[in-house]
Amino acid sequence: MSAWEANVRRVDPYVPGEQPKEKDIIKLNTNENPYPPSPKVLAKAFELEKLRLYPDDKATLLVDEIAGYHGIKSSQVFVGVGSDDVLAMAFMTFFNSEKSILFPDITYSFYDVWAELFGIPYERPALDDSFNINAEDYYKENGGVVIANPNAPTGIARPISFIEDILKHNQDVVVIVDEAYVDFGGESALPLIDSYDNLLVVRTFSKSRSMAGLRIGYAMGSEKLIKYMSDVKFSYNSYTMNMPSIILGAESIKDDKYFKETVAKVVKTREWFKTEVEKIGFKVLPSATNFIFMSHDKISAKEIFDKARANKIFVRYFNKPRIDNYLRVTIGTRKDMETFLELLKNII
Amino acid sequence: MSAWEANVRRVDPYVPGEQPKEKDIIKLNTNENPYPPSPKVLAKAFELEKLRLYPDDKATLLVDEIAGYHGIKSSQVFVGVGSDDVLAMAFMTFFNSEKSILFPDITYSFYDVWAELFGIPYERPALDDSFNINAEDYYKENGGVVIANPNAPTGIARPISFIEDILKHNQDVVVIVDEAYVDFGGESALPLIDSYDNLLVVRTFSKSRSMAGLRIGYAMGSEKLIKYMSDVKFSYNSYTMNMPSIILGAESIKDDKYFKETVAKVVKTREWFKTEVEKIGFKVLPSATNFIFMSHDKISAKEIFDKARANKIFVRYFNKPRIDNYLRVTIGTRKDMETFLELLKNII
Repeated sequence: MSAWEANVRRVDPYVPGEQPKEKDIIKLNTNENPYPPSPKVLAKAFELEKLRLYPDDKATLLVDEIAGYHGIKSSQVFVGVGSDDVLAMAFMTFFNSEKSILFPDITYSFYDVWAELFGIPYERPALDDSFNINAEDYYKENGGVVIANPNAPTGIARPISFIEDILKHNQDVVVIVDEAYVDFGGESALPLIDSYDNLLVVRTFSKSRSMAGLRIGYAMGSEKLIKYMSDVKFSYNSYTMNMPSIILGAESIKDDKYFKETVAKVVKTREWFKTEVEKIGFKVLPSATNFIFMSHDKISAKEIFDKARANKIFVRYFNKPRIDNYLRVTIGTRKDMETFLELLKNII
Repeated sequence: MSAWEANVRRVDPYVPGEQPKEKDIIKLNTNENPYPPSPKVLAKAFELEKLRLYPDDKATLLVDEIAGYHGIKSSQVFVGVGSDDVLAMAFMTFFNSEKSILFPDITYSFYDVWAELFGIPYERPALDDSFNINAEDYYKENGGVVIANPNAPTGIARPISFIEDILKHNQDVVVIVDEAYVDFGGESALPLIDSYDNLLVVRTFSKSRSMAGLRIGYAMGSEKLIKYMSDVKFSYNSYTMNMPSIILGAESIKDDKYFKETVAKVVKTREWFKTEVEKIGFKVLPSATNFIFMSHDKISAKEIFDKARANKIFVRYFNKPRIDNYLRVTIGTRKDMETFLELLKNII
């Protein structure tokens, strides 16, 4: 080992879902949207000549669209390179206490990776046997709270009253509510940002807005919270959002009709698919997202995962305690799901 | 002050050069390229429908093009959201010693911002009276070294032997050579990466490749260095490079003829402009970049800055010790520079 390696930050990186390069596959493993972005986005021409210039460091066009859409001030919006960038910045900005931050044992698996990266102590209160979060677990003293709502990979959503209960017990730390999947059926905590200056609500364009390839995420909160995050962002990279993201992201927000239609299609397919797999013996958690979390008594999740893969159908399997007999299945097109359903019937 | 604010990371963010929104201005303040990206980039169609999918987390297409261009392995290349993202990741990855890292007192003003953000101790050895870096200042024990070569905002380049001298005296820490401007006349340290596994060479697409609007930067070094950086990157954000960056960035590398032609045009304009302003009494530091650093005995830099601005010509003025009578002037088109020269003649 070279001497310089002694001062390297050692981490155990997050492993994203596989991005297979094969063609003709059915990809239900990373919660992407089966529908393309709005035709208005696809038709949006922008001057590539301008790529020689730096983008607007404040991403004003995009920030203003997001603020207008949600009926808040532009100074209450923070944008980043996907919600991962936004969440990482939030961890770096707000979690500098010696006390442990709290998030569930089963949730988005990046939270503990960020905590490790930034040296933030953390505890993971266990979900109950039905995979629900117990609000009481978050009443104790802590350095911050992170709740994915709907939660992943369970898909379970809790009402705004549940989030407000946690907020009432946590007014001295920042509470992050990660709403990556909220558009598919969850209840947003957004109405609470004016009452709780320590609440940060995080969203993404990667799921409901069909724009994972552009990398756009955002956070909403009090002007004070957003200002602190912006200061850290400007201490890290002045220009995080490139021109295509700013321009096409803004265009996506404008086409609300298309957005609502495609979200409704995904929800409809999800409910149909859930009913069908329940008929063949799967236990499916209630989902307010664009995926379902399901298991079967007779056949192991790993076996289904492997057989699906052999048939070029990619779903997500987590080799982790408590959830190693579950599969997280992204909702694709109706046709994708019919193909997968046929396979499941054959396996069983 | 709310209680949660006690645990906020307090920073004094980097202030990027102004991005004026007025039209009909001459913008010589942020070292952008006056020429658009390669016509091959501009003509590159890509399937916007695919934006619904996550980009390749390894940005393979872009990484392979960069590696092929420089004749190194893909495992020796790290890509990020501009060289700022790359440098920030490098600081976070490599500078975790209790000892101070070293960089010049006058250099890219983001280095101390990152050091502050990540809590890295640092010292800034002074440039000599001709604004040259003294290699001897970097012989002492330290936690890492960062050298911009060519340096900014001075524009001065040092030969590869100078970098190797610093490397010989610093084999136990990571040495970062920031070559943002090297294509305009500097000598790259790239040939040294096989001999020194602790050397990281950083580049950007924002200057010589006319793609500031896309945000692409990269680093080259030993496979070991790159692996450590990638681990940190995957602990921060799986997908930093969006699809347009990966696809259009790769396209830019392919058109080497256009790249060399536009760089040569900028260099030619720079040398002509330098000669002209010297004729009217400006002292100009030798530049190996796409900007010049100049001062005048009779008229203050601040006065010229203000008058230029009043005439819709934006140049960069740093209100900092030792350089507060200098202007950093980006090399624009010949026409831009003729207009600015006329103004300078009028002022004098």
